[in-house]
Amino acid sequence: MYLTQTLHQAMQQDPDRLLTIDGDRRRTVRESRDRIARLAGGLRGLGVRPGDRVGMLALNSDRYHEYLMAVPWADAVLNPVNTRWSAAEIVYALEESETSVLLVDETFRETAGRLRDGYAGLKTLVYCGDGPCPDGMVGYEELIASTEPAEDARRGGDALFGLFYTGGTTGEPKGVMLSHDSVLMSALGCFATGDWLSQGGRMLHVAPMFHLADVFVWISGSFAGSTHVTVPQFTPGGLLATLAEQRITDVLLVPTMMQLMVDHPDAGGFDFSHLEHVLYGTSPISETLLRRVSELFSRASFAQAYGMTELAPVATVLRPSDRGDPALRRSAGRAAPHAEVRVVDEEDNEVERGVVGEIVVRGDHVMVGYWKREEDTATALRGGWMHTGDGGYMDERGYVFVVDRIKDMIISGGENVYSAEVENVLARHPAVAACAVIGVPDEAWGERVHAVVVLRPGSQSTAAELREFCREHIAAYKAPRTAEFVEALPVSGAGKILKRELRRRHRPADPRVG
Amino acid sequence: MYLTQTLHQAMQQDPDRLLTIDGDRRRTVRESRDRIARLAGGLRGLGVRPGDRVGMLALNSDRYHEYLMAVPWADAVLNPVNTRWSAAEIVYALEESETSVLLVDETFRETAGRLRDGYAGLKTLVYCGDGPCPDGMVGYEELIASTEPAEDARRGGDALFGLFYTGGTTGEPKGVMLSHDSVLMSALGCFATGDWLSQGGRMLHVAPMFHLADVFVWISGSFAGSTHVTVPQFTPGGLLATLAEQRITDVLLVPTMMQLMVDHPDAGGFDFSHLEHVLYGTSPISETLLRRVSELFSRASFAQAYGMTELAPVATVLRPSDRGDPALRRSAGRAAPHAEVRVVDEEDNEVERGVVGEIVVRGDHVMVGYWKREEDTATALRGGWMHTGDGGYMDERGYVFVVDRIKDMIISGGENVYSAEVENVLARHPAVAACAVIGVPDEAWGERVHAVVVLRPGSQSTAAELREFCREHIAAYKAPRTAEFVEALPVSGAGKILKRELRRRHRPADPRVG
Repeated sequence: MYLTQTLHQAMQQDPDRLLTIDGDRRRTVRESRDRIARLAGGLRGLGVRPGDRVGMLALNSDRYHEYLMAVPWADAVLNPVNTRWSAAEIVYALEESETSVLLVDETFRETAGRLRDGYAGLKTLVYCGDGPCPDGMVGYEELIASTEPAEDARRGGDALFGLFYTGGTTGEPKGVMLSHDSVLMSALGCFATGDWLSQGGRMLHVAPMFHLADVFVWISGSFAGSTHVTVPQFTPGGLLATLAEQRITDVLLVPTMMQLMVDHPDAGGFDFSHLEHVLYGTSPISETLLRRVSELFSRASFAQAYGMTELAPVATVLRPSDRGDPALRRSAGRAAPHAEVRVVDEEDNEVERGVVGEIVVRGDHVMVGYWKREEDTATALRGGWMHTGDGGYMDERGYVFVVDRIKDMIISGGENVYSAEVENVLARHPAVAACAVIGVPDEAWGERVHAVVVLRPGSQSTAAELREFCREHIAAYKAPRTAEFVEALPVSGAGKILKRELRRRHRPADPRVG
Repeated sequence: MYLTQTLHQAMQQDPDRLLTIDGDRRRTVRESRDRIARLAGGLRGLGVRPGDRVGMLALNSDRYHEYLMAVPWADAVLNPVNTRWSAAEIVYALEESETSVLLVDETFRETAGRLRDGYAGLKTLVYCGDGPCPDGMVGYEELIASTEPAEDARRGGDALFGLFYTGGTTGEPKGVMLSHDSVLMSALGCFATGDWLSQGGRMLHVAPMFHLADVFVWISGSFAGSTHVTVPQFTPGGLLATLAEQRITDVLLVPTMMQLMVDHPDAGGFDFSHLEHVLYGTSPISETLLRRVSELFSRASFAQAYGMTELAPVATVLRPSDRGDPALRRSAGRAAPHAEVRVVDEEDNEVERGVVGEIVVRGDHVMVGYWKREEDTATALRGGWMHTGDGGYMDERGYVFVVDRIKDMIISGGENVYSAEVENVLARHPAVAACAVIGVPDEAWGERVHAVVVLRPGSQSTAAELREFCREHIAAYKAPRTAEFVEALPVSGAGKILKRELRRRHRPADPRVG
């Protein structure tokens, strides 16, 4: 199967239906297909060859949709760039993936210049903003207007669909390689859980489109005949207004967005009666928050998905019908039809139900591997199972409960933050003698990056100063939002910092976490 | 992906739920899994090796379900036998597919002896009936009781799932090779059309389980957590009673069954309020019949699927939401999400919308090929598209209308009948000088096998006599139910019999059929 098949099918069945809405700009299936075919031809003309990576660094727009289709149409590989990363991080990923063509919008115009300085291999910048095309860049609209439509390469099956970079435990980002079959399988498997998405509805893209979670719902919507409505980025008031004004039927939200949205003073003043399906994931959600969102979106059903980029991305689903059961309030759901899920001990043996171990996943949706990292790939996929790094247990009915993170990763506002990466930066600060970075529960962010610091004798510092220092080197969302200063860090007999001990001070008691 | 994954998932999530109901016999997921693992071990013990074909000649039962799971569990290939075929036809298929192990129930005990006489390679007969095991056969229950559970081979992906024999244009049956991926893709793709099946519902198997149409809904139900309810075979009263008594939520019916059911005097006396989804296919349905069935099953939604064994089996779906549109009354629906569908001319060029051509289909669900028939495979799959042999057109919205059959095949009561095969037999009758066999519209059978005969000078015969003659050589459903005697057959300038001309005399006018 191949992704652009959904576009051909839409052309065959309903060429004049609206496919994208971006502010006042509306495009039908026919227009969108024509632009995608021309953009694919344009990319070819810029020297993109089969299998080449093509990046995009931009806020959400209808052009992001065109990019996601045009790159496979041109037989190339997607490389959507995390807009929250620092220029240094982006340079690292572009260079490692040998990406020579990058699409950038006006928001990242300045950044693009720095990327070029940092990575000489970045040959071509395509400007997909709305203003005039800057010097030294190729205009997106000019490219489309001046190119004949290309024939669809029908790239699909086990060919590479995209590289999706995630943070790395060693401080280096890793490129997750996903095939067409894996992303398509994840979407189709979720449909088999029942009432998953509206058919022919309106889907809002407010979560960043570079993130696989949103790419996943975009693919699902492409199967369901959705009209894709995009907003550049999340603002609580903008989300509320767009949901109501555009009569949105389906939306993916992360809990952080939900919190800021229900806290918005105008939240109660809109009509959300068209909203049918709310999908959410990336971090646990509090009962209070879920209740408030359910009251706001009273006609919508809520489904929660758990997974990760390496799983393309869905492993388990908590279905709307599971909502009534109080025992499932903290559950991430059960294995989706396409996924095999187990909890294993350190020797990869399945543990008894109720016992905490590492959550591992197998199936056709699992990543091909990490780009150019055979060793990391072999470790992550040992025994044929993707090792998620998440600690959890499974109850007697197969419901998974995520209780801890084995890989020492924090998920803050839907983004993965690896503690080691932040600690490496923090340790360079002259006042810091020792430090540990952990995630602590946070109503707004799901988890908040928190630093526990031992200062050098005679030195002084503040949380604000440490955060500022980190922001010079890494993305803002990775920098600690809070810090505490202690005399010493708790260590094991072997001298290893006991992070679990540090986390426990910030978390509600859970008898299952040993 | 692999089919038995659905069973492992059911074990993980709900081991004590009912998986099968066969009369008074009810089995949970746990019992069913244990029996399947033992049956797989038993088949291994009987000498079944990876990739070997294992046949089953039986009416519907919970053991048919066990067979469908146990054979891939044992790393072997299914070969479900058409129960309506003559012994000679079955021998042909078993011999060609080198099937040495066959499961038979009490209904086909006698037939089994004849099969053994006809095909020396049939080494083992497993008796899956309820009575005592006949001499010379292996008892199904004894086999399960005496064997340890085998480990699941997890046969899947592009490995062969089964051989499904269909009638052949040249009078010889052909074995359609389907992979796990193709049958799984067809099921998952249909889920993406929306409200397809009940989750955790009760699915009735009244259509024969040897037929891929029922295997398809059985796979779909395995994803949706259905309890499979089986009845040995169709009777109108039995169907009505079982639907009501077992509170069936999902059922696949062929139009012939629908007709006989609504005509049954007791039809109005049952409670069908649990019935949510009726799937039907294999032949067109009259508006009158659909209205009557809709009135009877007032709470159910009706979806129609069009396809064939070679398509595993679904190509297009007419969704419940299409029902309101009078223009779609005779449509077979639009391409399912997993399928690409086109209408082409004799040079395989796509024709304009509204123009009749051959319906061709492409996708991961398409068969691997015909068993040991490279030439037939190459012809059927030329250019990468499965040539259905069905003539039809597509409207502006992508709806397919099947108007004629190019391959000269008749679908009667859901079974394929190739005219050539019947004509070959009929021509051997001493009174027949020339003949043509066509399908004519029939309220009960969808199409009826009808013979147009020119008698030899001085000879006499009747429809009943010709039918009886045919039944000695081929399955009863292939023998002409009616016949007409004419002076001469209409022929083209090249001397070819103009079947379209013969058919037109029996069909309502359709201006599109040239």
